[in-house]
Amino acid sequence: MRTPVGILGFRGYSGAELVALLERHPCAEPVLLEHRDAAHGAPNDDRPASPGRPSPRRIAYSPDAVRAEGLAAVFLATPAEVSIDLTPALLEAGTKVVDLSGAFRLGTVENYTRWYKEEHSQPALLAEAVYSLPEFHRAKVAGARLISNPGCYPTAANLAIKPLIEAGVVRRDAGIVCDAKSGVSGAGRKPSLKTSFCEVTENFSAYSIFDHRHVPEVLRTSGLQESELSFIAQLIPIDRGILETIYFRARDIESAQELLLIYKKAYADEPFMRIYGHRQVPDLRGVARTNFCDIGAHYDPETRRAVVVSAIDNLVKGAAGQAIQNMNLALGFPETDGLL
Amino acid sequence: MRTPVGILGFRGYSGAELVALLERHPCAEPVLLEHRDAAHGAPNDDRPASPGRPSPRRIAYSPDAVRAEGLAAVFLATPAEVSIDLTPALLEAGTKVVDLSGAFRLGTVENYTRWYKEEHSQPALLAEAVYSLPEFHRAKVAGARLISNPGCYPTAANLAIKPLIEAGVVRRDAGIVCDAKSGVSGAGRKPSLKTSFCEVTENFSAYSIFDHRHVPEVLRTSGLQESELSFIAQLIPIDRGILETIYFRARDIESAQELLLIYKKAYADEPFMRIYGHRQVPDLRGVARTNFCDIGAHYDPETRRAVVVSAIDNLVKGAAGQAIQNMNLALGFPETDGLL
Amino acid sequence: MRTPVGILGFRGYSGAELVALLERHPCAEPVLLEHRDAAHGAPNDDRPASPGRPSPRRIAYSPDAVRAEGLAAVFLATPAEVSIDLTPALLEAGTKVVDLSGAFRLGTVENYTRWYKEEHSQPALLAEAVYSLPEFHRAKVAGARLISNPGCYPTAANLAIKPLIEAGVVRRDAGIVCDAKSGVSGAGRKPSLKTSFCEVTENFSAYSIFDHRHVPEVLRTSGLQESELSFIAQLIPIDRGILETIYFRARDIESAQELLLIYKKAYADEPFMRIYGHRQVPDLRGVARTNFCDIGAHYDPETRRAVVVSAIDNLVKGAAGQAIQNMNLALGFPETDGLL
Amino acid sequence: MRTPVGILGFRGYSGAELVALLERHPCAEPVLLEHRDAAHGAPNDDRPASPGRPSPRRIAYSPDAVRAEGLAAVFLATPAEVSIDLTPALLEAGTKVVDLSGAFRLGTVENYTRWYKEEHSQPALLAEAVYSLPEFHRAKVAGARLISNPGCYPTAANLAIKPLIEAGVVRRDAGIVCDAKSGVSGAGRKPSLKTSFCEVTENFSAYSIFDHRHVPEVLRTSGLQESELSFIAQLIPIDRGILETIYFRARDIESAQELLLIYKKAYADEPFMRIYGHRQVPDLRGVARTNFCDIGAHYDPETRRAVVVSAIDNLVKGAAGQAIQNMNLALGFPETDGLL
Repeated sequence: MRTPVGILGFRGYSGAELVALLERHPCAEPVLLEHRDAAHGAPNDDRPASPGRPSPRRIAYSPDAVRAEGLAAVFLATPAEVSIDLTPALLEAGTKVVDLSGAFRLGTVENYTRWYKEEHSQPALLAEAVYSLPEFHRAKVAGARLISNPGCYPTAANLAIKPLIEAGVVRRDAGIVCDAKSGVSGAGRKPSLKTSFCEVTENFSAYSIFDHRHVPEVLRTSGLQESELSFIAQLIPIDRGILETIYFRARDIESAQELLLIYKKAYADEPFMRIYGHRQVPDLRGVARTNFCDIGAHYDPETRRAVVVSAIDNLVKGAAGQAIQNMNLALGFPETDGLL
Repeated sequence: MRTPVGILGFRGYSGAELVALLERHPCAEPVLLEHRDAAHGAPNDDRPASPGRPSPRRIAYSPDAVRAEGLAAVFLATPAEVSIDLTPALLEAGTKVVDLSGAFRLGTVENYTRWYKEEHSQPALLAEAVYSLPEFHRAKVAGARLISNPGCYPTAANLAIKPLIEAGVVRRDAGIVCDAKSGVSGAGRKPSLKTSFCEVTENFSAYSIFDHRHVPEVLRTSGLQESELSFIAQLIPIDRGILETIYFRARDIESAQELLLIYKKAYADEPFMRIYGHRQVPDLRGVARTNFCDIGAHYDPETRRAVVVSAIDNLVKGAAGQAIQNMNLALGFPETDGLL
Repeated sequence: MRTPVGILGFRGYSGAELVALLERHPCAEPVLLEHRDAAHGAPNDDRPASPGRPSPRRIAYSPDAVRAEGLAAVFLATPAEVSIDLTPALLEAGTKVVDLSGAFRLGTVENYTRWYKEEHSQPALLAEAVYSLPEFHRAKVAGARLISNPGCYPTAANLAIKPLIEAGVVRRDAGIVCDAKSGVSGAGRKPSLKTSFCEVTENFSAYSIFDHRHVPEVLRTSGLQESELSFIAQLIPIDRGILETIYFRARDIESAQELLLIYKKAYADEPFMRIYGHRQVPDLRGVARTNFCDIGAHYDPETRRAVVVSAIDNLVKGAAGQAIQNMNLALGFPETDGLL
Repeated sequence: MRTPVGILGFRGYSGAELVALLERHPCAEPVLLEHRDAAHGAPNDDRPASPGRPSPRRIAYSPDAVRAEGLAAVFLATPAEVSIDLTPALLEAGTKVVDLSGAFRLGTVENYTRWYKEEHSQPALLAEAVYSLPEFHRAKVAGARLISNPGCYPTAANLAIKPLIEAGVVRRDAGIVCDAKSGVSGAGRKPSLKTSFCEVTENFSAYSIFDHRHVPEVLRTSGLQESELSFIAQLIPIDRGILETIYFRARDIESAQELLLIYKKAYADEPFMRIYGHRQVPDLRGVARTNFCDIGAHYDPETRRAVVVSAIDNLVKGAAGQAIQNMNLALGFPETDGLL
């Protein structure tokens, strides 16, 4: 029998992806938790069920229901303020919480207030929460009650940047550029003019120049200073996918192969990291609907110009897939379960 | 000097198209009328002006301003209920009104109430309004104060169907099918889940089966009975364009050429009608950003199966372009001014 | 251990979908067969493998290799003429053949010559081949050596039309209209102007009016006469999906519920058929990347106008998924294996 | 009477755009020149003509025909090798040549050979050709016989970069990044797998990292050294538009306003340059189907990180529009004719 786990916010894009992935999970079984604040105002897609595959269970959310159903973990695919509201009662109900919002990512109240422009009403939980990009932080997850799942942009950014910083090959005085592009699902399912079809199709636009809420996550994990990183988010007219083109001036690298070797060593046994060969870089089709992060690099030894391309599916490795990876770690399931 | 004409609702897709077309009009000059109820809740695109081409004038709307500015006509690119509210004062201010909404299209209060599910507070104006698809009704426009511009779907449908009905070549007992497809801009600029990028891209869906508000316009103009017409609207993941595939069983036609001849005769001198040759049918690229209605037909004489394809740009011939055609007729400008 | 099965033409869209689906199949293991004539001139996507999931095996194709590897079945995701060429040697090598092309669909040489405008060099195999849309023909598959997988359009059409014809509720003298729309992957991976991005995006176009090669499959399975069916294929600017809007005049039906009941009875135990409730119809997002065929219907009892909407993923239920369903039947695996 | 000008390669995307723009030109009249080598293998869109607007004249190309028709200029919307072949005879026929290919852009044979990997058979013409991005080079155009129209990427890049270099505000030792994104029409109309709909839609990919043929044009015009510029081209799933995000470390600038002032001064009277206000950057919808280049900038004085966004329509300002601007200069027409 599979262990039941709950999903709050299952009508949003990340929530729906969680449900779809968990339906194929060998050890966990999704239970949909109905809750007014997690509904996003979005009507549900009531598609008919198949006689061959029953729909997942759906119950009204309450801390008591979570306890009664014996949910081993609950995913919060909800806005940050809703996550902050719901987490205390969930933890009290004895379940583990995997939060996909920004509520518990930034470690300190000061950081949160600066980037989210709001007070944080649960500073103790903010301090307790374990931020986990599993490729870097998996050791800390098993013992955690509250796991904060990384943002989509920082996931692609840090998997590309952190190994470079650690290898000491970036000329940090020249700065590092992260030109990030995302599909529209990253903005969530709530209707807005910015994500309306006619505004997005046949268009391409930048937003949140230097001040995106995800910037502090990149800094915190990679070890870069704010002054060293130029990060811009941009909207591609596609449903899903994030591609980040990362530019820097290198030192102490003699060839592209040497640059690639940094990644091949860092990720030798990582099941969700795929490193491209020389002169090849990833595209978004290669990672769509997978939990992979694909990385490719190009380097000109003569001029020391380097570029790295990092690609993920924002709803999978950038949200629901990584959250399941974290749940697997938290509940003691094999880390790749339901994700390969 | 060009004659000033006003636009209410210039932030919506049809309104913006009106402004863009009128900026190139040789006789009319657009004046943007700011009005709370015509704003659609949509923020404006404040793009910088070019030193080479000044932006159109923008003034606060009031009936007095309309009179003071001497606006010869005012376009209402507003929801039906706003058009009904604003029209009486505009007419009193002495300007001609070209309404792009459904407010004055259906002739009788009964018709309006059945299809729009609302009362109509201006029955006298509804009766007075001249519904004008210029290819059929241009003679009536010159003397009119209030012109009701046809809906986008009925424009493409009636230009294809009416000549067939008049020629008596449709076996009406077998029914006529109009399978209509539209780009998303037809739904207007107000954000909604149905027109959100991620819901529309890589999708195709039907809506308003048999009960679309545009059906009575098709019936009224073509002379078909409701029982004879099967009309479905469908959403294509594109910005603009309507293509209608019309099926019927023919009588008294011996060849495809004979079928095409009906159109070639009916539209011999029409500047905005283009009839395709045998075995060719229009696509949407051919009409994008034009005021043309393209028509092609296919016929199998042996089995008497016939199909007609009719294509327009929903924002031009289906809205703003046709409205300018009507304004040209109403103000005595050449009918094709600003449109070829 | 999983039973090895071969794929010829694995670089095309249907072939790649076969590989992706078979990688998750509990009983069958995909073996990629390299072959010049099955390459479509398309370069391969050489994405790096993950340490967590090995790439499928890839060997040079020859009848001897098929025998040596003990391939229980071989899928032909190749053009019709290549399928005709390769099939005799494959059957001689003792493997079962599931052909996804039109090579063996039409039963007789006359039919093939009329619709494919070519001679058929293997008339005996054409006569022997078992055409199988499993929902209708599964009983015949177990004993077959050569299985002909239906076309994408006829799959969606026949699943919607055949139950109606059998129930006798179509007024056949009035004709039945099948307005079909397909994503671009249905045209295959070979580059052509018609499937170039800039020609397709923001466009919508009809092709093969009344004379599409898939028409005889619709007639043969549904029992309709050519004179009774108006079938048009149209291109939607999306990657995958087929939606068919089917219009007819009904007899002996008093309500929409009665119409839906025909489908609910016909498909009561079918794992891949999902029937929508009254006033709801399927869209393409609901079937994307699934083996489902979704059907919805609308009926106006007063005027006897009926419409049925049928939706599939052209690469899954319309090609690779259905082919695996047929392989499951042919090799004695559970029919839904790898597909739910 | 309008001056006749010829277009070779009118079936390609740039060529078709030339025709569309010239049809509205007050002083020039397009004449389509049929030529085998300029056909791109692409069939023509034979859409029917309107009684209201005659199609442009079409004649067989020959140098004699060019002379006989008195074509004042001929546009070459042809591949580089075809342009090199045709130019000598055209010049001899006494017409001015505006070449849209890369044939005559790089000034020296060495440069051409390095970046185009081919010999150049007309070194004298290569030396004679006037490369003209009109905002910088218009003074040299009037006397030229052969005008080389800039590439699309360098147009957007140089209009953004050159004023910065001239103002001396770029810390060149830290390098300048130009992350360029283009719609698919930039790749031309010849079918290829890379520009097939299903490969491009829902995808985003980089190509030509550091070695794009357009790089030397950026260097030559802006004055940057190759080692100072990191340029990557990327494909957006849209029809048309180029957006370039340009990153640098600034010196001697105290505010974003100061940065913007550089552009406002440089382009004060330029009819096709639009400079955004602080904290706003251009998107592609703003420039679609216009000859504008829109520029916006963002600057963080504390950390000296700067970003500039430059946007054009690749087929207009990046090709046909700019070519007409050059033709206007060459033939003595007002520079904005046919373009505002």
